[in-house]
Amino acid sequence: MTSRSTGGRRATGDVRSLGGEEALIQRYFAPLAAGYPGAFGLADDCAQIAPAPGCELVVTTDAVAAGVHFFPDDAPRDIGWKALAVNVSDLAAKGARPVAYVMAIALPEAPTDDWMSELAAGLGEAQRTFGCHLIGGDTDSRAGPPSITITALGEVPAGTMVRRGAARPGCDLYVTGTLGDAALGLMLRRDPGLARGWGLDEAEARQLVGRYLRPQPRLLGEVLRRHAVAAMDISDGLAKDLGRMARASGVGARVDAGALPLSTAARRALGRDAGLWERIVAGGDDYELLVAVAPAAGAAFATEAAAAGIPVTRIGHCLVGEGVAFDLDGTVMQLDRSGWDHF
Amino acid sequence: MTSRSTGGRRATGDVRSLGGEEALIQRYFAPLAAGYPGAFGLADDCAQIAPAPGCELVVTTDAVAAGVHFFPDDAPRDIGWKALAVNVSDLAAKGARPVAYVMAIALPEAPTDDWMSELAAGLGEAQRTFGCHLIGGDTDSRAGPPSITITALGEVPAGTMVRRGAARPGCDLYVTGTLGDAALGLMLRRDPGLARGWGLDEAEARQLVGRYLRPQPRLLGEVLRRHAVAAMDISDGLAKDLGRMARASGVGARVDAGALPLSTAARRALGRDAGLWERIVAGGDDYELLVAVAPAAGAAFATEAAAAGIPVTRIGHCLVGEGVAFDLDGTVMQLDRSGWDHF
Repeated sequence: MTSRSTGGRRATGDVRSLGGEEALIQRYFAPLAAGYPGAFGLADDCAQIAPAPGCELVVTTDAVAAGVHFFPDDAPRDIGWKALAVNVSDLAAKGARPVAYVMAIALPEAPTDDWMSELAAGLGEAQRTFGCHLIGGDTDSRAGPPSITITALGEVPAGTMVRRGAARPGCDLYVTGTLGDAALGLMLRRDPGLARGWGLDEAEARQLVGRYLRPQPRLLGEVLRRHAVAAMDISDGLAKDLGRMARASGVGARVDAGALPLSTAARRALGRDAGLWERIVAGGDDYELLVAVAPAAGAAFATEAAAAGIPVTRIGHCLVGEGVAFDLDGTVMQLDRSGWDHF
Repeated sequence: MTSRSTGGRRATGDVRSLGGEEALIQRYFAPLAAGYPGAFGLADDCAQIAPAPGCELVVTTDAVAAGVHFFPDDAPRDIGWKALAVNVSDLAAKGARPVAYVMAIALPEAPTDDWMSELAAGLGEAQRTFGCHLIGGDTDSRAGPPSITITALGEVPAGTMVRRGAARPGCDLYVTGTLGDAALGLMLRRDPGLARGWGLDEAEARQLVGRYLRPQPRLLGEVLRRHAVAAMDISDGLAKDLGRMARASGVGARVDAGALPLSTAARRALGRDAGLWERIVAGGDDYELLVAVAPAAGAAFATEAAAAGIPVTRIGHCLVGEGVAFDLDGTVMQLDRSGWDHF
């Protein structure tokens, strides 16, 4: 793990005020590397990693930044969770088992001890939940919003990584969990007063906000590898991400909007404000999986996923052609690259 | 490769103005992934990578940001080179062969086509030079300085990664290339007028600035693995980084300052301004390697490194104890954690 400064161009009051960069790393981050020998206690230039025999590694990188992916005053424990969870969600979509991650953190000024401790606690909760370890990183003091860039490494048996662009006409489309909760949660995070108009009690509002703050990667692992023809995670909304899968696969897609799985809270809010429909379908931050499955495998997929504690719902299918059509109460809405195109 | 936006919280005028995030990725970055099948053309959530049989992967991450690691008006071709080179330098220090990298790029506003093309060209030059490929990444529009966070993956035969903390008393200490050029180059980058006072002609000044702008990872590979007891790259200056190696190894170190390899330009500048000495030893951005070698292996190490085109110089040795002492013309300067402590 390294902390770079160059020629005194650092901002003043940076993380070194906690007792030096190495002290900071050793205090907050090294405990997250305990138990992974190849991390060398974050005291070397690099970490060492090898897939288990017969396995390959899958790699992804995603950054979260204040003002874009989280609010500057979000609880640091939630920020830490989210930074790792959004990466592990990509691994989950490939059927991979999370193994390790490296983290580059950039902060404009010295965080408080409490903030750093809570950030590390959130990372710790997340990595214990997902089964991976911090193995290296980089700290920087720089202007701009705090950001955390993680590269996550997972493992799959060689040749079994589930692809995004492998869907075929005739495949059924499934999603995990419920959609739109995080998009509504983000709206509530900005304006808690919306809850009243949506008819939500405090617990429901908190649940939706929690879905925004704490994405839950859907680690279906072997169930996904066994049954999925194609998969990806839904981070930018079903509409946009299904469009990506369809394009990458060279297929069209048709979604029965009435079949989309909604939480009780989302359904209640939608009942009060039908305009939320677009937020649910086109808002981001779901971190559910979108999975294309051959029809013959659908029942087994659904059963095994449910047994793994992750309910899945069939929402539509792939067909010859291109584009994504949403069938909503008999009205078909065609999605093109630039957004909704009603006809 | 993913481009995340969340709930319309992006700044306006972002990279999407070039024709959409996916278009941007496909236009500038996908060509950098060509030739690496596991990158899937940057069109999947994750990349796939496996070490060659009998090998392990080594992993490192480093960010570069405008105003900290490069100047906002540096040539984008140089920025691209540097972003990858500083990561590959860490791999080089472990004796690894670079294989692949993922990149998270954050920009406050829409770059011009020219800027993006040149950035990609610099990355392309670097990856061809180092022998690796882009395999995934993330683009973000956010406030703050432009930054590029790379995670680099290299390969070593299993069990041969050269460690930082394995130096032993009696080891000789070597460095590659010349020290201090980049620190002086940074000074010249800020104030070109210094060249005159240092007695440098235009070519020499350009050479020093070039050493700052274009770090050259010292890919000694097998030569390092065969002979090094310990190694790390010198990114924060010899003084600080040797202190790190000594602490990590539980040894002391003594450096013969008169033996430090200096370029003709640096030597000339130092002749005019003896105060530059501290910049040379404590300035950053060298990206040379610091290598501990058993005395019996020193001659072979030096010969083989020179044959690989990378000259090395013996600068001192490790000893029982702690701390780093620089012997400069008979005056011993002791370095402690907080800086220079003359006695």
